[in-house]
Amino acid sequence: MAQQVRAHNIAVSRDGYAAGEGQSLERPFGHADPRQLMSWAFEAESFPGRDEPGGSRGFADLLVREFHRNVGAEIMGRNKFGPQRGPWTDEEWQGWWGDEPPFRTPVFVMTHHPRPSFTLSDTTFHFVSGEPAEVLEQALAAADGKDVRIGGGAQTLRQFLDAGLVDTLHVAVAPLELGAGSRLWESPDELEDRFRHDVVPGPHEMVHHLFWRE
Amino acid sequence: MAQQVRAHNIAVSRDGYAAGEGQSLERPFGHADPRQLMSWAFEAESFPGRDEPGGSRGFADLLVREFHRNVGAEIMGRNKFGPQRGPWTDEEWQGWWGDEPPFRTPVFVMTHHPRPSFTLSDTTFHFVSGEPAEVLEQALAAADGKDVRIGGGAQTLRQFLDAGLVDTLHVAVAPLELGAGSRLWESPDELEDRFRHDVVPGPHEMVHHLFWRE
Ligand SMILES: NC(=O)c1ccc[n+]([C@@H]2O[C@H](COP(=O)([O-])OP(=O)(O)OC[C@H]3O[C@@H](n4cnc5c(N)ncnc54)[C@H](OP(=O)(O)O)[C@@H]3O)[C@@H](O)[C@H]2O)c1
Ligand SMILES: NC(=O)c1ccc[n+]([C@@H]2O[C@H](COP(=O)([O-])OP(=O)(O)OC[C@H]3O[C@@H](n4cnc5c(N)ncnc54)[C@H](OP(=O)(O)O)[C@@H]3O)[C@@H](O)[C@H]2O)c1
Repeated sequence: MAQQVRAHNIAVSRDGYAAGEGQSLERPFGHADPRQLMSWAFEAESFPGRDEPGGSRGFADLLVREFHRNVGAEIMGRNKFGPQRGPWTDEEWQGWWGDEPPFRTPVFVMTHHPRPSFTLSDTTFHFVSGEPAEVLEQALAAADGKDVRIGGGAQTLRQFLDAGLVDTLHVAVAPLELGAGSRLWESPDELEDRFRHDVVPGPHEMVHHLFWRE
Repeated sequence: MAQQVRAHNIAVSRDGYAAGEGQSLERPFGHADPRQLMSWAFEAESFPGRDEPGGSRGFADLLVREFHRNVGAEIMGRNKFGPQRGPWTDEEWQGWWGDEPPFRTPVFVMTHHPRPSFTLSDTTFHFVSGEPAEVLEQALAAADGKDVRIGGGAQTLRQFLDAGLVDTLHVAVAPLELGAGSRLWESPDELEDRFRHDVVPGPHEMVHHLFWRE
């Protein structure tokens, strides 16, 4: 199959927010509690960096393992990369993930504020701007024949969706409302005309939406 | 992780039958209609041998792709291999799957009626008897460090479950009753004491049960 463009494990509230307001170093998801959005995934045996044994090897694990399968590059927004806004005041910040980021591929960070690429372990971060289609072209070329993952946040993912560039998408809807923040959608129905769609209720009152293009 | 023993895509009726009565060349599942049990899987884009485009790349596909992931050998019962019973009257029968069986690994067919091994494309069939633990030892050794799949039918899988040899198990319950045939269980509750367990309702009124051992 040709290279695919995929998004996985995008967690949103029932009202469609993937992060709250007021992102900061102390609160990477702003007023949202990442545990409430993501605990279904943190529980999975294969969640990157998980160190306790006894994780789920059931449905959550099946979904979480997809995140890494056959992915050769990631595209993320600058707000996922860090809490800073505007021009970089220094370039010390190298992302949330420590010395061994879980991506293990080239990562293209979209931003209007360029800075030099750098490498941590198996992950190289590049800083790029441009139309989604242009950035995707770079990522596809860097992915060594594998797929490209759109890693979020919502603002970035939404651009790729609106440009018709996403082949498959997994969104996990958590049982809470956030009221404000960075919004992926008002309702999953917005994508019905462009995708086929499975709705699968999982453990912890999560509802998983799997979309794919014909 | 150490080599795992896994069963996937085992389809049963609501009353727990994985095949009907009266298996024959014309009716591989006996009085059961395999389409009723398996259509959720036939629909998946990755179902082996599927030739039409337009298959599901949603939940069914996620489950079906697991069938091949990191599997180095399969163990199946002789009744899955074919409709014959008792001593082989001839050895012309080479399984249901044509010249390119979808296993692509060594396959250990359990039977009290031995016959010589043979190879079709990437699959070699061996005919073995013995306790489940002994047969598993052979399959693990042949699996080249990968996992071993227990392919069914119910009689064979049940023996491995009863001997405590299965690490993960995916059973798909279809919305019909069969009343008779080869039975996996009376109820999934029978496995509760030995496994953790997710129950996930999928498309087409299928209910997917994912079991894993701690
Ligand atoms: N719930 C989840 O599953 C999930 C997943 C990922 C992230 N998150 C969370 O979501 C939040 C971040 O998401 P977000 O929606 O606020 O932002 P985002 O999508 O991560 O980043 C948006 C920023 O990326 C840059 N950008 C986007 N498109 C661009 C383009 N075409 N050209 C150049 N630059 C472009 C802009 O930064 P500049 O101002 O630098 O130009 C823009 O402000 C964080 O709190 C993160 O932790 C949640
Ligand atoms: N629903 C599904 O997902 C699914 C999956 C697979 C198969 N099937 C269907 O299920 C049916 C077959 O299942 P089944 O439960 O009837 O039978 P099975 O498990 O496929 O085979 C049972 C036979 O295997 C041999 N055997 C089992 N344990 C043995 C041992 N310890 N030592 C030696 N031989 C052993 C015996 O054959 P001998 O008499 O030769 O000794 C026994 O009669 C077929 O209709 C097949 O199409 C359905």
